Amino acid sequence: MEWNFKEICIVGLGLIGGSFALNLKLRGFPGKITAVDINPEAIEKGIELEVIDSGSIKHSIAESADLIVLSTPVGVYEEVLKQIKPFISNRAIVSDLGSVKGHLVYRCEEILKGIAPFVGGHPIAGTEKSGVENVVENLFEGAKFIITPTENTDREAMEKIANLWRNLGSEIVVMDPYHHDRVFAAVSHLPHVVAYSIVDAIDKLSKELSTNLFQLTGGGFRDFTRIAMSDPVMWRDICIENRENLLSALKTFRESIEKVEKLIEKSDGNGLKSFFEKAREKRRSVK
Amino acid sequence: MEWNFKEICIVGLGLIGGSFALNLKLRGFPGKITAVDINPEAIEKGIELEVIDSGSIKHSIAESADLIVLSTPVGVYEEVLKQIKPFISNRAIVSDLGSVKGHLVYRCEEILKGIAPFVGGHPIAGTEKSGVENVVENLFEGAKFIITPTENTDREAMEKIANLWRNLGSEIVVMDPYHHDRVFAAVSHLPHVVAYSIVDAIDKLSKELSTNLFQLTGGGFRDFTRIAMSDPVMWRDICIENRENLLSALKTFRESIEKVEKLIEKSDGNGLKSFFEKAREKRRSVK
Repeated sequence: MEWNFKEICIVGLGLIGGSFALNLKLRGFPGKITAVDINPEAIEKGIELEVIDSGSIKHSIAESADLIVLSTPVGVYEEVLKQIKPFISNRAIVSDLGSVKGHLVYRCEEILKGIAPFVGGHPIAGTEKSGVENVVENLFEGAKFIITPTENTDREAMEKIANLWRNLGSEIVVMDPYHHDRVFAAVSHLPHVVAYSIVDAIDKLSKELSTNLFQLTGGGFRDFTRIAMSDPVMWRDICIENRENLLSALKTFRESIEKVEKLIEKSDGNGLKSFFEKAREKRRSVK
Repeated sequence: MEWNFKEICIVGLGLIGGSFALNLKLRGFPGKITAVDINPEAIEKGIELEVIDSGSIKHSIAESADLIVLSTPVGVYEEVLKQIKPFISNRAIVSDLGSVKGHLVYRCEEILKGIAPFVGGHPIAGTEKSGVENVVENLFEGAKFIITPTENTDREAMEKIANLWRNLGSEIVVMDPYHHDRVFAAVSHLPHVVAYSIVDAIDKLSKELSTNLFQLTGGGFRDFTRIAMSDPVMWRDICIENRENLLSALKTFRESIEKVEKLIEKSDGNGLKSFFEKAREKRRSVK
């Protein structure tokens, strides 16, 4: 296994950044892994769990790294890059693990222009938990890792990042950054917003019915709303940074809801059966 | 363990009816278990899997049973009861496992008046699969079993049904039939309709983006939409039989969606964070 990097610095040590570090170690990455986080407890915990070798609340720790990976909520990328900029070595590549790409990738490139190549990345993996204490072994094994190059992307840097993720067991998918945001608005951001919203609705219905509905749920509901336990700050940032695409996906979803509502209003048994059958067939196509 | 019944006949041998039979056997029910199904293959499969002792496509098999349990889609209860009526013994109790109660319980009581006591029941358990070939061991262990008595319900019959489900490991919850339908419109019927609808929306978005979005989903999406693989006929009937309550739950849900849409439109970070935090807290209260 070729690793290409000697020291990797993770900026933002939460569940994803921490799992990235852990799985580098588990796969035999021979170099050093450091982290920066505004929360000193995350750093302490990361060292205690042997997920990272060392860490700091100061961005200067990144100066010896030849790979810097942003793993903060996407809303603070700009601020974080400005703070870390003075410490980026001239051998370093910068990459990220965020759920929004599009304009953000171009903004990162702009801030890093003349300093370091930037390679946008997004691992399609995670859990509803957060924090380095919830790191997951083999989280990226068999998962897709989306790389979103632009016309400016350094191809050699991109190949090194792709190779790193292949070493973690991921399948590399290359995608235009703007297309990425339309795709994940649909398959990830929309479901999360819907899950939070259904919990909100059931809370309102609990009050209307004077019944704690959350105590009367079954396994279907629990799986369905598991993602509503995801990190609110991370999802706030995703909603704002991918606003237009998410609103467009929500509009399409509302049309589907209105369609099924009309079928129920009319007690249209054939229409309902065929709507459900078609959805079941599509869902069954998911591996 | 006291069983109270000597012969139980299950009408409609699918995943729920079949799992009921299987778990009766696993818990040591010493009597006979029979089934009626319009599909002879379900009966054959049930016998082959040793889930039932015997079965038939003819309702006359119910004549020696002292408990008859409806486990068909709720839309055919009336027809099924009319067909089985001539064969109901004067010692028998009739119960059911359907997801809609309310007016249906009263309709069953009316059809069975002077023939047998009816006890409405609803096990809060299931999977997205269907068919007797997918029976699940211990499906009802630790699950709630809702009993929905009316002012006409025979209390002795009800106590026997409650005892039977306690023997299967379920926790008995007694609820007014109409209240049941409002509760389950919210916590079960709404999530199912939403799951089918989001799959419909993602299918439309796949076409818009010329990308098979179903191939780009992660674990969150898979869990979120698992219930969209549930049986279309069962869900068609539930939607129609619980129409008013479901439409009312859908209206409340659309208000939640519209609320979050407005927050996203305004890029209201604080509003989004607090919406997500509140939902996360509520969801975390689910055991």
